[in-house]
Amino acid sequence: MKERKVPDVVARRLPRYYRYLDDLLKKQIYRISSSELSRKMGVTASQIRQDFNFFGGFGQQGYGYNVEMLHKEIGAILGLYSGRKTIIVGAGYLGHALANHTNFKKRGFMLVGVFDNDKAKVGRKISDLTISDYDGIADFISENQPDIAILAVPRTAVKSVAENLISLGIKAIWNFSYTELDEQENVVIENVHLSDSLMMLSYKLNALDD
Amino acid sequence: MKERKVPDVVARRLPRYYRYLDDLLKKQIYRISSSELSRKMGVTASQIRQDFNFFGGFGQQGYGYNVEMLHKEIGAILGLYSGRKTIIVGAGYLGHALANHTNFKKRGFMLVGVFDNDKAKVGRKISDLTISDYDGIADFISENQPDIAILAVPRTAVKSVAENLISLGIKAIWNFSYTELDEQENVVIENVHLSDSLMMLSYKLNALDD
Repeated sequence: MKERKVPDVVARRLPRYYRYLDDLLKKQIYRISSSELSRKMGVTASQIRQDFNFFGGFGQQGYGYNVEMLHKEIGAILGLYSGRKTIIVGAGYLGHALANHTNFKKRGFMLVGVFDNDKAKVGRKISDLTISDYDGIADFISENQPDIAILAVPRTAVKSVAENLISLGIKAIWNFSYTELDEQENVVIENVHLSDSLMMLSYKLNALDD
Repeated sequence: MKERKVPDVVARRLPRYYRYLDDLLKKQIYRISSSELSRKMGVTASQIRQDFNFFGGFGQQGYGYNVEMLHKEIGAILGLYSGRKTIIVGAGYLGHALANHTNFKKRGFMLVGVFDNDKAKVGRKISDLTISDYDGIADFISENQPDIAILAVPRTAVKSVAENLISLGIKAIWNFSYTELDEQENVVIENVHLSDSLMMLSYKLNALDD
């Protein structure tokens, strides 16, 4: 299936669709009408059809979408069946929390290594992995060819660590370090800004008080 | 300033504007043209004007926006100067990571308590607070009147903990528990889905390979 260029705002809805379809499957719901999907997702039915048309429409027939098929196709578009090898750099509280985040495995990401430059942490277990010395990361990457690095390092370290990882062949960076990394050629970056969501909560709370 | 009803998609851009203006101030940049703001934010200049018009337009004059003023006004709209009292429930790795998240304080949220039901954790320090027993949370809330609860509890516990906190008077829940909580009357909820962002990274990585 060859896709048209997908606008960022459409692409960003895909994980939500996927997550919602996942919930439906868990509830053993195998078929859903576009109006029901629309109601649950808070997106108009026409928006859903427009979104899905970017990917060939997913063949809605008669009384609705086939949930299993839709789930599988969106999962494939999101690259969830590629078994992407993933490493975590930074084994502090956040690194631990992310390593224990069971959804990553469920979403098809293979966590293959955790690194820290604190020698006191090296050798300890985190989830089912042993923390490795960041000094040895070049050899590890060269041998194991991971694609994705999760950065849970202090903000002062993020730029130099990211540059190092990119020079070693990492192609995707999930950055939790509160310092925005700029996109660059042949590397994809997602900067996570947790406090955006807290600010939204605060905004909604203010609106509630009005 | 009385606001028109602000669409969710506009409101969700406010934290990004705020964060970006924050960076400008750190770089001692005090004035920015709408085209420059547009370029940096990846939003059209006309979109920015439309967004700002919901809040009275922020009086762009001659050669651009006053960064300090814009920062302050958007911060006020986001409720960042209210010193909202905030508690964390769940003192595992994620709870620790969130307690140490310096941006919360910088954004005006006052962390006043951390709770866990694991007696082995009670009494330990986390950031500059001492972990309290979840059993005593009713008294704490009644005495201290926090508005916001950050939930970093296992997904199996999230619904019962949320119900309990709401019955005790908590008005806003920032939910990290991978189980979506539904909005309800007089309570605002932000469900954080970290893996959405990982799925987007995977999507962009796939597009890179094409």
